[in-house]
Amino acid sequence: MADGGRRRARGGGGAARRAERTAVRINTAKFIERNIPVTELLSEDTLAIIEYNAETVLEEIGVNFVDSPEALARWKAVGASIDGERVRIPRGLARKLCQTAPSKFTQHARDPAKSVEIGGNTLVTAPVYGPPFVRDVEGGRRYATMDDFRKFVKLGYMSEFLHHSGGTVCEPTDVPVNKRHLDMLLAHMTLSDKPFMGSVTEPSRAQDSVEMCEILFGKEFVQENTVMTSLININSPLTFDSIMMGALEVYATNNQASIISPFIVGGAMAPVSVVGTLTQVLAEVLAGIAYSQILRPGAPVIFGTFVTSIDMNSGAPTFGTPEASQILYGAGQLARRMGLPFRSGGGLCGSKLPDAQAAYETANTLNAALMGGVNFMLHSCGWLEGGLVSSFEKFVMDADQLGTLQKMAAGVDASENGQAMGAIAEVGPSGHYLGCDHTQQNFKDAFWRSSLFDYKPFETWDEEGARDTQTLAAARVKYLLENYQQPAMDPEVLAKLEDYVAQKKESMPDSFV
Amino acid sequence: MADGGRRRARGGGGAARRAERTAVRINTAKFIERNIPVTELLSEDTLAIIEYNAETVLEEIGVNFVDSPEALARWKAVGASIDGERVRIPRGLARKLCQTAPSKFTQHARDPAKSVEIGGNTLVTAPVYGPPFVRDVEGGRRYATMDDFRKFVKLGYMSEFLHHSGGTVCEPTDVPVNKRHLDMLLAHMTLSDKPFMGSVTEPSRAQDSVEMCEILFGKEFVQENTVMTSLININSPLTFDSIMMGALEVYATNNQASIISPFIVGGAMAPVSVVGTLTQVLAEVLAGIAYSQILRPGAPVIFGTFVTSIDMNSGAPTFGTPEASQILYGAGQLARRMGLPFRSGGGLCGSKLPDAQAAYETANTLNAALMGGVNFMLHSCGWLEGGLVSSFEKFVMDADQLGTLQKMAAGVDASENGQAMGAIAEVGPSGHYLGCDHTQQNFKDAFWRSSLFDYKPFETWDEEGARDTQTLAAARVKYLLENYQQPAMDPEVLAKLEDYVAQKKESMPDSFV
Repeated sequence: MADGGRRRARGGGGAARRAERTAVRINTAKFIERNIPVTELLSEDTLAIIEYNAETVLEEIGVNFVDSPEALARWKAVGASIDGERVRIPRGLARKLCQTAPSKFTQHARDPAKSVEIGGNTLVTAPVYGPPFVRDVEGGRRYATMDDFRKFVKLGYMSEFLHHSGGTVCEPTDVPVNKRHLDMLLAHMTLSDKPFMGSVTEPSRAQDSVEMCEILFGKEFVQENTVMTSLININSPLTFDSIMMGALEVYATNNQASIISPFIVGGAMAPVSVVGTLTQVLAEVLAGIAYSQILRPGAPVIFGTFVTSIDMNSGAPTFGTPEASQILYGAGQLARRMGLPFRSGGGLCGSKLPDAQAAYETANTLNAALMGGVNFMLHSCGWLEGGLVSSFEKFVMDADQLGTLQKMAAGVDASENGQAMGAIAEVGPSGHYLGCDHTQQNFKDAFWRSSLFDYKPFETWDEEGARDTQTLAAARVKYLLENYQQPAMDPEVLAKLEDYVAQKKESMPDSFV
Repeated sequence: MADGGRRRARGGGGAARRAERTAVRINTAKFIERNIPVTELLSEDTLAIIEYNAETVLEEIGVNFVDSPEALARWKAVGASIDGERVRIPRGLARKLCQTAPSKFTQHARDPAKSVEIGGNTLVTAPVYGPPFVRDVEGGRRYATMDDFRKFVKLGYMSEFLHHSGGTVCEPTDVPVNKRHLDMLLAHMTLSDKPFMGSVTEPSRAQDSVEMCEILFGKEFVQENTVMTSLININSPLTFDSIMMGALEVYATNNQASIISPFIVGGAMAPVSVVGTLTQVLAEVLAGIAYSQILRPGAPVIFGTFVTSIDMNSGAPTFGTPEASQILYGAGQLARRMGLPFRSGGGLCGSKLPDAQAAYETANTLNAALMGGVNFMLHSCGWLEGGLVSSFEKFVMDADQLGTLQKMAAGVDASENGQAMGAIAEVGPSGHYLGCDHTQQNFKDAFWRSSLFDYKPFETWDEEGARDTQTLAAARVKYLLENYQQPAMDPEVLAKLEDYVAQKKESMPDSFV
């Protein structure tokens, strides 16, 4: 029994129960279940062209699987044509192989109430992934450390509308490259109880991730359930490297989920057009997900799309642009036509500061992600400077905005109470609704309210120091970190995890490359 | 001949032609023609409930027409039941009267290339309307003056993605209340050549607006064409005052366009629910537009909706919230079902500064407005602090973002060039697109590019002073105002306009109430 194994692992003794009693109650919203329609931006005709062209790309141009004789052998066995590292996939084969991938899966969290469903009408939010730098008002921009990492995990744990703890919320550059994943996983497992991501920087580190999950969740539970969703980037254009494919192999064969994701700076790694880029995205995802299903039919995967536009003057990637939104909408449509969960979007921006540029770009992306039907949204909060920086202030700013998506997706209430005809009759022309019964009964949940923004009258706001959003956010970061309380954990499990990390670290010399 | 009259008015002599030759060329994008689908957020069932309930409101509760015996008489004549100032409209009557309103109309500009079509698949952007205060980095927050007003008109004239010069871009508080409209209209007419709005603060001022347009465009042209779109607010809930209705009468009988717009702070002036609010909005618009068609069947009108949410803690109106977006989407659907042009949205925000809060809130609204099918977007740029402040910096920030709507609405190119299959074949796996033919031929228009945001590498940006968006915007405001050149105008027309304003001002004592 999978659940039995899990309960054992989470059982714990008196100490754990005592810790549980003293912990501060932190609200986490259930993952979003969309009760509004998805916007279908591209026409049926355009989508059919893209699908046809993507198959042409796979058949005639093909994709490279680099340094992976096993991958080439596997492709050959299912009927692809192999020429050096080039794999040409007959029309229709990749799409057929993709059919065994589930349209929806559950990623379990340590706290079962925080397990998430990914696919169908759901939207799961996860924080920024990957930046080597951090920034805050006090310390400015600097290389990220493990201490920063832990702070972001704590903030994520305390963010109501963030459903997922994420993965590399920043790169802890003070820990050796070959040991970072151990500390990062330990932080997600112990400082939060939300679902998280595993390491992909080496197949062996993916294996370590699986083994740590076996300690946390129980070995049997992990084999029968998905407890990690990890990020497998494709080396666009049309190239699959052996490290990422090795990590994918570890996760797929262990029934763990992978996001198969083209990573594209538009105009550099894909054609400088929306339809051309979508064609390449689809070809890459078809090949990558087909490969995951060759490794293990039924392995949970997500149709990923990370595409930026580019400023052709400076060569810088740009975010929140109309073309990036069009690609996001189109990729979502392609994913739904394959019946696959879809990853894209997030709080993407190019700005160096959490200022108005950052917020316009971020909001443009968040809105497109919601309306475009994203199921898994990496980089939902904290992303700054094109992904070079994890920003403490922007983390709480974006996390607050995620509440707007949650409420928007809930749709409108057309019940008798929602219709409010009694209130309209009661108040009548020239009246005032604030005091009427319907308002009194409904006002608490009627309108979404930011827990960060300033809604005070000008005079009050001015007397309090005329603070801008960044300043308010800095205060909120401080408040949250000061009031953080670690979620309770079975001390035996904790000891085993710490032992595992210590032993692994001792087993190899430090490496910083 | 209407066109003949217009050409005469614009004819001018050598001086005008010389002025024309020396003027700096300012680009103005054509009004947006939407090539993407509209998002239909609410279900058919919910819309049918709202439509049924709105008719119930009109029939059973009714609306008040205050201090307007003529209005009551007109309503009685078409079959409504009158009880004091209360007008009860039999089910179906208002909707039937609305049928003579055009689904689309052209508002002519002084420069015919800048005339706009309002309705159907178009989107026309107009600036902020109404704030008594202005703000900029140098001068802070202060009462607006006529000098500020002129600056905003100049900025609007120079904003590529702003199609309309607007109306009260700020309240010139240094000019007597009863004479402001003259100076404001003269500024729009002479400092810009884009379409503009007329005065609604007194019926006599609406009449002055028509007369000034007759000087600018020619009397015959004005009678046969629409040259103003003005804002007629409904005094929600369900109340129509005699001043606004008097202005509507002047405009409708002169074939000039009016936006019939509920003005609602949610929870105070309408029920604290989306469906209840939409019911009231529809009832109010049905009554208002029906009345415009009683005044003159075929008078051009716009289905307006201005609804904010409210922070029930402070009572402050809030913007960019999910409920505000849901109401915008729903109202758009209701307007389209009536076949009427739709006004809503804009760069709405509650923030005191043009900071991240302002930009999140603004972008949420702009995105909803685009996807929700807004045809006329007042407050597109410059709106700050819940509409109390016109911000110079936010004006250019928002005006820049309007470019994203323009490009997004253009849709995607699925032509052979857009498909870029040649480029994908040419570059192949692991290649680079920057140098390929397709990129070279298409890069200039491929990706929208902000003309305000910072896209430079961190180091360059840091060396240049680490400027945030507000600082960049302040520099842009300065640059634009320094480089403004007035569009050429027939000196005879200008003299007549100035005479008209001078005579009108002399004809009455100053009033500041």
